[in-house]
Amino acid sequence: MKYGVIGVGAIGGYYGSKLAYSGQEVHFLSHSDYEFVKERGMQVDSCDGSFHLKQVNVYQYPQDLPKCDVVIVGLKTTNNHLLPELLPPLLHEHTVVVLIQNGIGVEADVQQMFLDVPLIGGLAFICSAKTEPGRVNHQCYGSINLANYSCKDEVLFENILKDFTDAGIPAASVPYDEARWKKAVWNMPFNGMTVALNTRTDLLLKNPSTRQLIRDLMMEVVEASRALGISGVDEAFVEKMIQMTDEMTPYSPSMKLDFDFHRPMEIHYLYTRPIEIARAAGYRMHKLEMLEAELRFLSV
Amino acid sequence: MKYGVIGVGAIGGYYGSKLAYSGQEVHFLSHSDYEFVKERGMQVDSCDGSFHLKQVNVYQYPQDLPKCDVVIVGLKTTNNHLLPELLPPLLHEHTVVVLIQNGIGVEADVQQMFLDVPLIGGLAFICSAKTEPGRVNHQCYGSINLANYSCKDEVLFENILKDFTDAGIPAASVPYDEARWKKAVWNMPFNGMTVALNTRTDLLLKNPSTRQLIRDLMMEVVEASRALGISGVDEAFVEKMIQMTDEMTPYSPSMKLDFDFHRPMEIHYLYTRPIEIARAAGYRMHKLEMLEAELRFLSV
Repeated sequence: MKYGVIGVGAIGGYYGSKLAYSGQEVHFLSHSDYEFVKERGMQVDSCDGSFHLKQVNVYQYPQDLPKCDVVIVGLKTTNNHLLPELLPPLLHEHTVVVLIQNGIGVEADVQQMFLDVPLIGGLAFICSAKTEPGRVNHQCYGSINLANYSCKDEVLFENILKDFTDAGIPAASVPYDEARWKKAVWNMPFNGMTVALNTRTDLLLKNPSTRQLIRDLMMEVVEASRALGISGVDEAFVEKMIQMTDEMTPYSPSMKLDFDFHRPMEIHYLYTRPIEIARAAGYRMHKLEMLEAELRFLSV
Repeated sequence: MKYGVIGVGAIGGYYGSKLAYSGQEVHFLSHSDYEFVKERGMQVDSCDGSFHLKQVNVYQYPQDLPKCDVVIVGLKTTNNHLLPELLPPLLHEHTVVVLIQNGIGVEADVQQMFLDVPLIGGLAFICSAKTEPGRVNHQCYGSINLANYSCKDEVLFENILKDFTDAGIPAASVPYDEARWKKAVWNMPFNGMTVALNTRTDLLLKNPSTRQLIRDLMMEVVEASRALGISGVDEAFVEKMIQMTDEMTPYSPSMKLDFDFHRPMEIHYLYTRPIEIARAAGYRMHKLEMLEAELRFLSV
C-alpha cells in the first residue's frame, strides 16, 4: 500500500515516520520543511525509542506526489480550507483518507468537500510536538483509535489498522460517534479552560471551584451525546477522565500550546460545531458556549 | 439626626462627606485613615465641585462614637464579618442601618446578625475611588437609590432620602428586590467578565462573541428574577443596560479594580449568593456559575 501524509508536524510527522520506519511506502507532503527533510531526513525523538529516517519521500507540491491508497491528514483543522487544493492530486478512485484531527464535525465537513471519498477519523492519544524542521519530539502515549466514518471497504480498514499495529503504534477500531464525543469529554473542558485561565490541567483540578466546573463542562458533553442518541458517554466515563487527569503529569493541551505560541486555535471544531450540533438536537451546552465566547475574545 | 459612617473609602467617604458638607452631624469610623483625617480633614475631588472638610468627627474605635440615628455602612462586603464588632456600639434602640454595598443577599445576611435592626439597602451609581488617605476622587455619576428592606418607620426613611437630596445627592426610593436584581443585571456580567478576560466594558461589547455572552449573562439574571417572582427585570432592561454601556466611557468595574490592586473580590455577594438564591427557586444560572468558578480560581 502507498501511504500519503499531509503535514510533517507533531501528528503527521510522528505517525508517518513510524509507518515508514516499519517498512511502509510513505510519501510526505511538506510545505515549510521540504528542503530540510529532503536533505537530512526525519528525526523522531521518542520515549518509545528514537530513530532517524535518512531517505524520505518528501514533496513540496501535491502535484508531485504519486496517487496513494491511504492519505493521512495531519494538519490542524484550522488549515482544512487548504484540503481542496492539497488532497485531489493524491487521490485515485479508491483512496481512503484518514483525518487525524481534533474535534467534532470534521469528517462531515470534509465529506462535503469530497463527496465520494471514504473517510476514517483518527483519534490520536499522544503527547508530541514538532520542535524544529524535520524533528518530532514524542514525549508519551502514542496510541490511535480509528473510527470508520464512510469507508465501505472493511478489508482496507483492517489493513490500515494492521499496518499501524505492525509499525508499533497501538491502534484499535472504535465506533465513530461514541469515539469523537468521548474524546470531546476531555478535550472541550481542558483545551479551553487552560487557555481561558492561563493554567494547567493539574491546577484546574486542584482548585475545588474549577474542579467542579470541569466536571460540569464534561457533563454538558455527556448530555449533548444523550440528546444525539449516542451511547457509551456517561457519568462513569466523566469520573474516569477526571481520575486519569489527576494521575497525569501536568499537561498543556494542544490549544494551550497553540495559544502560547500565537498559532490559530481550533475553536471551530472543538467548540462551535459541537455546540451547534447539540443545539440542533435540542440541548444547549451553556457553559461551553461561554467558554467558546471567551476563546473567541482571546483569539483576536 | 446623627449620622454614623463606617468606612471612609470611595463610598462612605464620598456620601458621608457630602452629608457633613451640607450641614448634617456626621461621625466617621476609620481604622486606617484615622490619624490623617483627624489632623487634616477630608478632601473630596469631585466632578460636581470639589470641597474640603476641615473638621471631621472621626474615630478609630467603634466604642468612641456616639449612638447614631442612621448608620451608613460603606465597607466592602468582604469585610461584613467585622460588622458584629463595629456596628453595635453605634446603635440605639431605633437606629436604622443603610448598607451601601454591592450584590444580592447582603441585607438578609446582615439581618441575621442584627435581628431587630431596621435595614435599608443603598444602591450607589457612582464612579469614585479613595486615592490616598482622607481623599476621595469622585469621577462621575453619584446618585443613590434607597431600597427599604426592613425599616418600618416610613417618616425616618423619607427623612434620610431628604437629607441625601439636600446634600446634593440625587436619591430616590426604589422597591427592594427589583432594585437589587436590576443592579445585578449590569453587575454580574461586567464585574466578573472584565476580571476573567482582563479587559474593559467597551472591549467586551466590541467583540461580537463576548457581546452575545454579556447579553446571555444578563438574561440569566432576568430569568432568575422571573423564577423569584420579581417583576420589572426584563429583556427591555437588558437592552437598556447594553445601550447605556455602549455610551459609557471605557470603565473598570469595582471588582476589576479590586483584582488589579490585589484586594479581595466580592465574589460571595455578587455571585455565590444570587446563584444559590436562584437555584433554590429552581433556576440555574449556568454561565454565571462558570464565571463564579473562574473568579474563585483567579482569586487564589
